[in-house]
Amino acid sequence: MRTTQAYQAAAPESGLELVTIERRALRADDVAIRVTHCGVCHTDLHALRAQSPDAFPVVPGHEFVGEVTAVGADVTAVAVGDPVAVGNIVDSCGECDMCRVGQENFCTSFPTLTYGGRDRVDGSRTMGAYAAEYVVRDRFVYHRPPELDPAAVAPLLCAGITVWEPLRRWQVGPGSRVGVVGLGGLGHLAVKLAHALGAEVAVFTTSAGKSAGARALGADRVVVSTDTDAMASAGASLDLVIDTVAVDHDLSPYLATVALDGTLCSLGHIGTVTVETMALLVGRKSLSSAGSGGRPRTQELLDFCGEHGITADVEVLPSREVMTALDRLARNDVRYRFVLDLSDIS
Amino acid sequence: MRTTQAYQAAAPESGLELVTIERRALRADDVAIRVTHCGVCHTDLHALRAQSPDAFPVVPGHEFVGEVTAVGADVTAVAVGDPVAVGNIVDSCGECDMCRVGQENFCTSFPTLTYGGRDRVDGSRTMGAYAAEYVVRDRFVYHRPPELDPAAVAPLLCAGITVWEPLRRWQVGPGSRVGVVGLGGLGHLAVKLAHALGAEVAVFTTSAGKSAGARALGADRVVVSTDTDAMASAGASLDLVIDTVAVDHDLSPYLATVALDGTLCSLGHIGTVTVETMALLVGRKSLSSAGSGGRPRTQELLDFCGEHGITADVEVLPSREVMTALDRLARNDVRYRFVLDLSDIS
Repeated sequence: MRTTQAYQAAAPESGLELVTIERRALRADDVAIRVTHCGVCHTDLHALRAQSPDAFPVVPGHEFVGEVTAVGADVTAVAVGDPVAVGNIVDSCGECDMCRVGQENFCTSFPTLTYGGRDRVDGSRTMGAYAAEYVVRDRFVYHRPPELDPAAVAPLLCAGITVWEPLRRWQVGPGSRVGVVGLGGLGHLAVKLAHALGAEVAVFTTSAGKSAGARALGADRVVVSTDTDAMASAGASLDLVIDTVAVDHDLSPYLATVALDGTLCSLGHIGTVTVETMALLVGRKSLSSAGSGGRPRTQELLDFCGEHGITADVEVLPSREVMTALDRLARNDVRYRFVLDLSDIS
Repeated sequence: MRTTQAYQAAAPESGLELVTIERRALRADDVAIRVTHCGVCHTDLHALRAQSPDAFPVVPGHEFVGEVTAVGADVTAVAVGDPVAVGNIVDSCGECDMCRVGQENFCTSFPTLTYGGRDRVDGSRTMGAYAAEYVVRDRFVYHRPPELDPAAVAPLLCAGITVWEPLRRWQVGPGSRVGVVGLGGLGHLAVKLAHALGAEVAVFTTSAGKSAGARALGADRVVVSTDTDAMASAGASLDLVIDTVAVDHDLSPYLATVALDGTLCSLGHIGTVTVETMALLVGRKSLSSAGSGGRPRTQELLDFCGEHGITADVEVLPSREVMTALDRLARNDVRYRFVLDLSDIS
């Protein structure tokens, strides 16, 4: 058994406290990583707000980067000193139809989450990467382009892959017309990545004040979604609309912007959605959703970002200011992603 | 002005009466067709049940076949004596993005429907093909394979094209796994066409008694949708599920049968649908809809059916028994489509 420092919530609403937690002794296929930076995701807020005492203790954090400090006997894919990254999945069955095609995020026996999951070997609860060290099975460790700012790479591992998978599944490239609804952690990366793939990008925002920021990220046009005329002008103009808004909202104005045989992919909101079949029928549009990503496309994303010099726009805080980051994220007071610098404890 | 005999409803709930109606004198691009057979579609029932007196008089009928009896001065695509067919659209703007790509069914200024529409030239109300003659713009007249039974071709023009377009849009072919929900006018043609395209076909039905019939149409397997175990076995096994059920129903059991990156295309029900985003997210599934078809794929369908000897399974009634056909259709007492033989009046 190893120990490490981590920010842990002991109970609902308890806040995070820096404590010593255990990490498992390395198995033959395990990798120990010194965590240098970890992104702060909306999921972390949800986990800390859980009302069931059974869900605690929690150490959040599931998009992180660091360096390999030790490897198990059978590990060959990475070596001590390698710059690496880990996302929100740390294991899967490896045998089901989904795992076999590299969609471990849809593993039919459910992937093991980076925190709040159950280790597939010893059944222990997984504890996240708001910590000095993480121990993870080698298959879920990715090579990180060393030339990129590690703090700004961390959000690629959750926010990034969540938008990258739909961009790739719907074959976005030169000539594609992509819309992005909402300009937060996911949305700003969707704009950067779609632009880098060669697409024409429209950003929908409720706030005209975000226009310059959207264009700086690579948007070709900005549509203020409260402007009825602007929305009408955008009708049937987009092949893929990626909706990153995390709260329940009316999808019909965005479905109206989808072109023939196009897709509205809802990534932000989990829950019930209601649509009129006529809004799908006319133009044969599709409503879809997606979340997280599998191993092949996660490495592909990191490689693509290395080639194109793409990272998240981040605000880096020392890890001791984690509660500030969470409070400000809850108020959407961030452009566009908080990242904790864990070098103050690691 | 020409006149013809037609079955017309004068008012809501009035029933159909054989009367003399006017057809326009041929314009330069018009074709006059002696109607020999017209399918009886659920839409006809809806039209006759309309409660607004403004919607009447109505002559139903929008999937029909016949022979050309006269052509306007500029018509070159068909000639007198040609075996032809017409569907539920008889005109469109011809200039919008949808018309330009051959999806006249989605014409942004709305296609002119075969009945209950407004003629784009003179503004008159269109009257359908429960009639001895129909006059139609040449662009919406299709060549009909003369070797096929004309009565059994008629339903291809609405039920057929409505399932053909999604089969083609989602590129169904050898290796595709297609599910069909409901085995009526649309469903039975979806099975035949998907099978002929080389797909493996599963039929979902509430009635185990339909199993032999489904297999005779080309189904490889039949899943009784009330059998929980059978539905579980069908989980994530289909690339495209075509749902032809005309009434509001829970889509989630059918979404569960859709495989990674597959689509549930709802064709039968018009109205509101509600789904859980998680049912789309896990497996990155799409919910879509479609209806009717454009000119290129309508001719393509007729050509394909000619090559493969495919027609609808029909019950042909003399046109004077039209009320019997409508009453039995309202009770779903038909296998699989009623067709009126209009030679008794034409």
